[in-house]
Amino acid sequence: MSERKLIILTEGHSDPHTAKTGCCIIRYRREEVVGVLDGTLAGQQVSDYLGVGDDLKFISSIDDALEANCLLIGIAPPGGKIPDSWRPIVLRAIECGMNVVSGLHDFVTDDAEFVAAAQQYQVELVDVRKNDFTAIARRPGFRKECFRVHTVGHDCSIGKMVTAVEITEGLKERGVDAKFCATGQTGIMIEGSGYPMDRVIADFISGAAEQLVLENEQHDVLLIEGQGSLVHPSYSAVTLGILHGSMPHALVLCYEVLRDKVTGVEHVAIAELPEIRKIVEVMSNVHHHCDVIGVSMNSRRVTEEEAKVEQQRVSELLGLPVTDVFRFGREPLVDAVIAARDRYLESVADETE
Amino acid sequence: MSERKLIILTEGHSDPHTAKTGCCIIRYRREEVVGVLDGTLAGQQVSDYLGVGDDLKFISSIDDALEANCLLIGIAPPGGKIPDSWRPIVLRAIECGMNVVSGLHDFVTDDAEFVAAAQQYQVELVDVRKNDFTAIARRPGFRKECFRVHTVGHDCSIGKMVTAVEITEGLKERGVDAKFCATGQTGIMIEGSGYPMDRVIADFISGAAEQLVLENEQHDVLLIEGQGSLVHPSYSAVTLGILHGSMPHALVLCYEVLRDKVTGVEHVAIAELPEIRKIVEVMSNVHHHCDVIGVSMNSRRVTEEEAKVEQQRVSELLGLPVTDVFRFGREPLVDAVIAARDRYLESVADETE
Repeated sequence: MSERKLIILTEGHSDPHTAKTGCCIIRYRREEVVGVLDGTLAGQQVSDYLGVGDDLKFISSIDDALEANCLLIGIAPPGGKIPDSWRPIVLRAIECGMNVVSGLHDFVTDDAEFVAAAQQYQVELVDVRKNDFTAIARRPGFRKECFRVHTVGHDCSIGKMVTAVEITEGLKERGVDAKFCATGQTGIMIEGSGYPMDRVIADFISGAAEQLVLENEQHDVLLIEGQGSLVHPSYSAVTLGILHGSMPHALVLCYEVLRDKVTGVEHVAIAELPEIRKIVEVMSNVHHHCDVIGVSMNSRRVTEEEAKVEQQRVSELLGLPVTDVFRFGREPLVDAVIAARDRYLESVADETE
Repeated sequence: MSERKLIILTEGHSDPHTAKTGCCIIRYRREEVVGVLDGTLAGQQVSDYLGVGDDLKFISSIDDALEANCLLIGIAPPGGKIPDSWRPIVLRAIECGMNVVSGLHDFVTDDAEFVAAAQQYQVELVDVRKNDFTAIARRPGFRKECFRVHTVGHDCSIGKMVTAVEITEGLKERGVDAKFCATGQTGIMIEGSGYPMDRVIADFISGAAEQLVLENEQHDVLLIEGQGSLVHPSYSAVTLGILHGSMPHALVLCYEVLRDKVTGVEHVAIAELPEIRKIVEVMSNVHHHCDVIGVSMNSRRVTEEEAKVEQQRVSELLGLPVTDVFRFGREPLVDAVIAARDRYLESVADETE
């Protein structure tokens, strides 16, 4: 594939929650983005709405950025479907010779009109979630020196992917051979590899997570992106499948300050962090030792001062390093991973002696 | 559909473990079975090999039971594929005007040769696992008076389906409006309804379990079949998805005596029952109260005397009623469900007052 020049489509949904895919691509692949399309906000600063994007301004149509070669669907709506009002935009992108990349459950490659247009204009439609993975987990044994860190959380959409990416980058800066392992559509779009775990057939989730590790175990540290939460009524199965398939040595617990209701199932309360930690450690220790080693706090809903108080509170409550990777930096978590890995490698050496 | 007259195909795999689908159909739908096909055992007693089937003898070809109108694939091999040596048998059944029912992951409706033959001879191919379920769990609230019992276990293939069916039958005998809710291919073949949970897309497992309850909550007691185990490295995601989607009030813990290695992943040990119980209760109590109320012991690998000793041991260890539903009868578990339901209905009445 030639260099990607992306238009990110967030039409009518330019908020950090619904457009989290778009936000993350802009944050981690800014150099590939030539436009962010939301006609309802044309001309306004992207960063005012999405919190990322530096100098980018919203464009109002495909024709405002014809240098692009790819339209990327930048939202993940609960229903998983492309809104009807977006169809003319997608079709115009195809007419202009742009590929279309989508992470939605509703496949663009299953849409007769899009498929016909793509054929006519010789462009590619890519459904990041589409897969035909059918292998069960077999616990083959991973390379012993490969240290595996997994991000888990108290809910979905709180920063498990961002935390994994940030720690990976921080480790690389320190000269550690670290690799981000994507398990969801946005992570895959950023990294260019990974498995869309929530779209794998249920019997094969752990198999896919195992395969993800096998394909990357040549690296010294893997940061395996988590999905959902063990206490999320809709998605806990996906969460557990990744946890049991990837067999992490260490977990980073991610949460959002003030989030106390389950996303998408708001009449269900989320348990307190010590309870979440207990649940996570019970399930991660079923067949091998695994500890929570740090907390990634998403404090976007409170002031910096409040965030500092909360950081202190949770650090004392759980006896763990706590940081907001954007506000206070990722270093405390990078330090925690390095320390945990050192302890792990010592224990491996002891066993071998 | 007219009355089913089944040939059960177990060719070369007539043991209770690999042919568990066949065994269960013979056990619970004996009146529909006109033949069990295994040419390697032609003329021998089915019950000598499968432990069920009364007077049935193995037949050696489709032509030995031409009164049949349906061939049912009676095995569930680990790979999930129809053995090559079976293809002529399946094709002969189609030629003889029989429908073909399969619960394998490898769909007969995806096999060009079978599809062409089915078209030619005007028969139906049915893949019990095939589904296009795509709705996430929403916790809509179930009918309050509907008491939900779920069978869980320490491994796969130990009797979770059988236990659910037996308790259902026992409750019906006592005049209780009970319903077996199938979550796997064999259960669906027996009951004629249900969802093939391990074949649902990962994001939607809990949604399918929720839907299963919604479709059956008019009954007073639901017996929801469990799958896999929370400690099975390959299938724990499916297990948790059903648990969180169906929100049981009570669990029956199923185990096999002497089973201490995970099926299909034999280098992994299974934890002891108190540990399994702890794990199961942690995960079943995330959002509401749910207890283990009894133990279903599969004692096929030990003598009756040994089974009695084990029954006593586990009953004291866990403080719960324990039975082998075949050897010692299902009544202790039926009693336990009735008692738990009475306590539950009292607590509901107290809340309402």
